[in-house]
Amino acid sequence: MDFDALFAKELDALRRDGNYRIFAELEREAGAFPRATSHDADAPDEVTVWCSNDYLGMGQHADVIAAMCDTARACGTGAGGTRNISGNTHQHALLEAELADLHRKDAALLFTSGYVSNWAALSTLGAKLPDAVILSDEKNHASMIEGIRHSKADKVIWRHNDPEDLDRKLAACPSNATRIVAFESVYSMDGDICPMDEIVEVAEKHGAMTYLDEVHAVGMYGPRGGGVSERLGLQGRITLIEGTLGKAYGVVGGYIAGSAALCDFIRSFASGFIFTTALPPAVAAAARTSIAHLKESDAERLRQREQVAKLRARLDALGIPHLHNDSHIIPVMIKDPVKCRQIADILMNDFGIYVQPINYPTVPKGTERLRFTPGPLHSDEDIEYLVQALSTLWKRCALAHAVA
Amino acid sequence: MDFDALFAKELDALRRDGNYRIFAELEREAGAFPRATSHDADAPDEVTVWCSNDYLGMGQHADVIAAMCDTARACGTGAGGTRNISGNTHQHALLEAELADLHRKDAALLFTSGYVSNWAALSTLGAKLPDAVILSDEKNHASMIEGIRHSKADKVIWRHNDPEDLDRKLAACPSNATRIVAFESVYSMDGDICPMDEIVEVAEKHGAMTYLDEVHAVGMYGPRGGGVSERLGLQGRITLIEGTLGKAYGVVGGYIAGSAALCDFIRSFASGFIFTTALPPAVAAAARTSIAHLKESDAERLRQREQVAKLRARLDALGIPHLHNDSHIIPVMIKDPVKCRQIADILMNDFGIYVQPINYPTVPKGTERLRFTPGPLHSDEDIEYLVQALSTLWKRCALAHAVA
Repeated sequence: MDFDALFAKELDALRRDGNYRIFAELEREAGAFPRATSHDADAPDEVTVWCSNDYLGMGQHADVIAAMCDTARACGTGAGGTRNISGNTHQHALLEAELADLHRKDAALLFTSGYVSNWAALSTLGAKLPDAVILSDEKNHASMIEGIRHSKADKVIWRHNDPEDLDRKLAACPSNATRIVAFESVYSMDGDICPMDEIVEVAEKHGAMTYLDEVHAVGMYGPRGGGVSERLGLQGRITLIEGTLGKAYGVVGGYIAGSAALCDFIRSFASGFIFTTALPPAVAAAARTSIAHLKESDAERLRQREQVAKLRARLDALGIPHLHNDSHIIPVMIKDPVKCRQIADILMNDFGIYVQPINYPTVPKGTERLRFTPGPLHSDEDIEYLVQALSTLWKRCALAHAVA
Repeated sequence: MDFDALFAKELDALRRDGNYRIFAELEREAGAFPRATSHDADAPDEVTVWCSNDYLGMGQHADVIAAMCDTARACGTGAGGTRNISGNTHQHALLEAELADLHRKDAALLFTSGYVSNWAALSTLGAKLPDAVILSDEKNHASMIEGIRHSKADKVIWRHNDPEDLDRKLAACPSNATRIVAFESVYSMDGDICPMDEIVEVAEKHGAMTYLDEVHAVGMYGPRGGGVSERLGLQGRITLIEGTLGKAYGVVGGYIAGSAALCDFIRSFASGFIFTTALPPAVAAAARTSIAHLKESDAERLRQREQVAKLRARLDALGIPHLHNDSHIIPVMIKDPVKCRQIADILMNDFGIYVQPINYPTVPKGTERLRFTPGPLHSDEDIEYLVQALSTLWKRCALAHAVA
C-alpha cells in the first residue's frame, strides 16, 4: 500500500484551503529578546518577535538561565526515569512545593507539559470519579477537550463564559452525578477573561468540582503571579488549578495544584503522569527560579500592561481594528487563511516583524488572525514601528480594494 | 460534595493491595553517577542507582552538559511557544535532521516526550487513515495503548512477539483495511527483543505499515545507536521508528522518524504535537550532542554489555533467579507487591542500593519485580556489592521460609 500517497492527499487538502503550516525558523539571542535571528531565506537576518508566549521575557532572565546551567552541571541533563523509577529528584520536590505555595494549595504535581497536565488530569478525573459529568466551556483548549474525550465521561458543553447557561446545565445533570466544571481564566486566542466569581458561585451552588486552566495567566495576574484566581481571591474556592511553566515562566512543563488527596490521586492513577520520563532537574530548577522571581517582582507585569495599553491605543489611533479584551493578548482579525498568511509574510520579509498567522485548527475557520503579545521588553519604538508597518499594509489593502 | 473522600477511598485501595507508590527522592551528582544523594530519611546519604534508564550515563557526559548550558546561555531557557507560533528554533531543525540521519530516514519529528510521540502519532494515524486497523502486540507500552484507544480505530491484539499469530490476524482484516502493525524492539519490563525480521516479513506480505517503538534500544543497539532495526539492517523496511531522548541519550523528549510525507502528516494533524510548547532549544542541543557522540563511540555500548554479562553471571553463580533475555535489562522476579517493596526497602536502607520495586500498573499483578539496568559506569565492585547484598537477602528469606 502506498502510504505516502495517502498522506500527500491529506496535505494537499490543507494546502488548497490555505491551512498548510510553515514554521518560521528562529534563533533567539538571550539578552536581545524580542529580537531574534531568522534562518528563513526570505526574511531579514534579524527580526522582532511579536507572538511569543514567553510573555514576560523570563526565558532570558539571568537567574533563570543560571539555575538551568548550574543544575545541569551539578546533576546532569536528564532525570533518567519516570518519577517512580529513579526519575524523582530533589528539584522536582522543591518545584512542587513552590507551585503549591504559589496557588495557596496543599500540593502540586508536575507534568511534562501543560497539554499533558490537562489531558492526564481530566481523563483520570472523568474516568475514575463515580458517574462523572464534565461541564466544559465551549472554547476550552484542545488539551482539555482531548482529556475529556479520553475519559469517556459524559460531557456537557456550556456557552462560552456564560454562568447562566452553566447553571441550567448543572441543574439538568442526573442527581447522582459527580459534576466537574472545566474552564479557563484567559482564553488565549480571543484574550477574553472568564467571569470567575460567577462561575465559582454557580459551581458551588451545585456542589460541583471546579477545574481551572490558568496557563495564559500564571506569572502575569495576581500580586504574586498566581493568576486570575489569585487576583480575585478565589484560589481557595477552586478545586484544581492547572498551569504551565512554558509561557510567562519561560521554561517548559505543566502542573496541577490542589488538595493533597487530589494530587496524590492523579499521581497514582494518571497514565500520562506515570508512564513518562520526568522533566530534567535543570528544567525544574529554572522554572522554580522564575516563579520565585515573579512572586516578588511586579516590574515585569506592570511594564507588560503599559506596553499592551500603548499598542492598543496606537492601533485605535490608526484605525486598525482589534478584538477588545482585558488581557495582554491583542488579536487583529483577518478572517481568511490566505490573506492572513500573506500579511504575515509581508510583515516578516519586508519589515522584519514576526507574527505567526493563526489558522485552523488553532482557531475556527473564518476567524484567522494575527495575535500580538506585547511584553515588557518591547520598546515604545518597537510598538511605533509595528503600527506604522500595519498602517502601511492596511492602506495598501484599502488601495487594492479601491481598484479591484 | 466531599471530593477528597472519593480520592482517599481510591488511594486506600492501592495501599491495601501494596500498590501505593512511594517515590525515592534523589539528587544525582554529575560525574559521580551511578552514585546519588538520597533525600529520604531512612536511606543512607549516598546510594547507588541500579534502575536508571539513563542507560549509558550520557546525562552526565561533559559535552552534553556543555551543550545544554551553552545553548541556554545563548538562546534562553525556553522555546516560548508551540512549534507553529514562535517556538520553532534552529536547534529543533538541527535535531530533527540528526534524528532522520540516525535512522536513515527522510525526516523526523520531535515531541515533548516519548509518551506523547506514541500517543500523538498512533492516535493520528488510526483516526485519519481510511478504514485503519491497528494490530498491537499484547505487551505494548501504555502510551501506544492510549494512542490506539484515542484513535477510535479498530484494534486487534496479537500474541506477544508471535509473527504467526500476527500473520493470521492480518489475514483476517477486512480487505479494504489500512493495516498498521505496532510493536516494540526491546520490551522494557521483561527485556525481551522482538523477532523483527519475521514481523517485518509478515507485515510486508500483507501490505501493512510497520510502527516500531525503539525507546529502550536507541543509543544502545546498532553500530551508530540506531536501535535494533539498525543492527538488523531493517531501518529501510520499517515505516515509522519511534524513539526517545530521555533514556540512553540522557535528556528528555520523544520523536518519530519516517518518510517526509509521514512526518509532515503527523506534524500537520496531531493535536499532541500542534497544541503544546516546543522543547527548550537547550534540551534539543543537549540531545543532539548525545546522539552525535553515540553515533561515533562504541565504548559505552561495549562496556554496558560487559557489565550486563557480569551481573548475569554473578546472579547465576549465586543462584538468584532472573529472567533471561538478550537485552541490557535484568528482571529479578518477586511476584508479590508487598515483598517486592520490603526487599527494595532493605536494599536501600541497609545497603544503599537503590532499585525501585516495579508493581502494577507498570507490570501485571503477580509479576512484581526488581529491574536492574547495569550500565558502563557500574564498576565490578558495584556489581559484587550488589550480588552479595542480594545473596544475603535471599538467605534471610530462605531462613524465614525454613522457620515459618
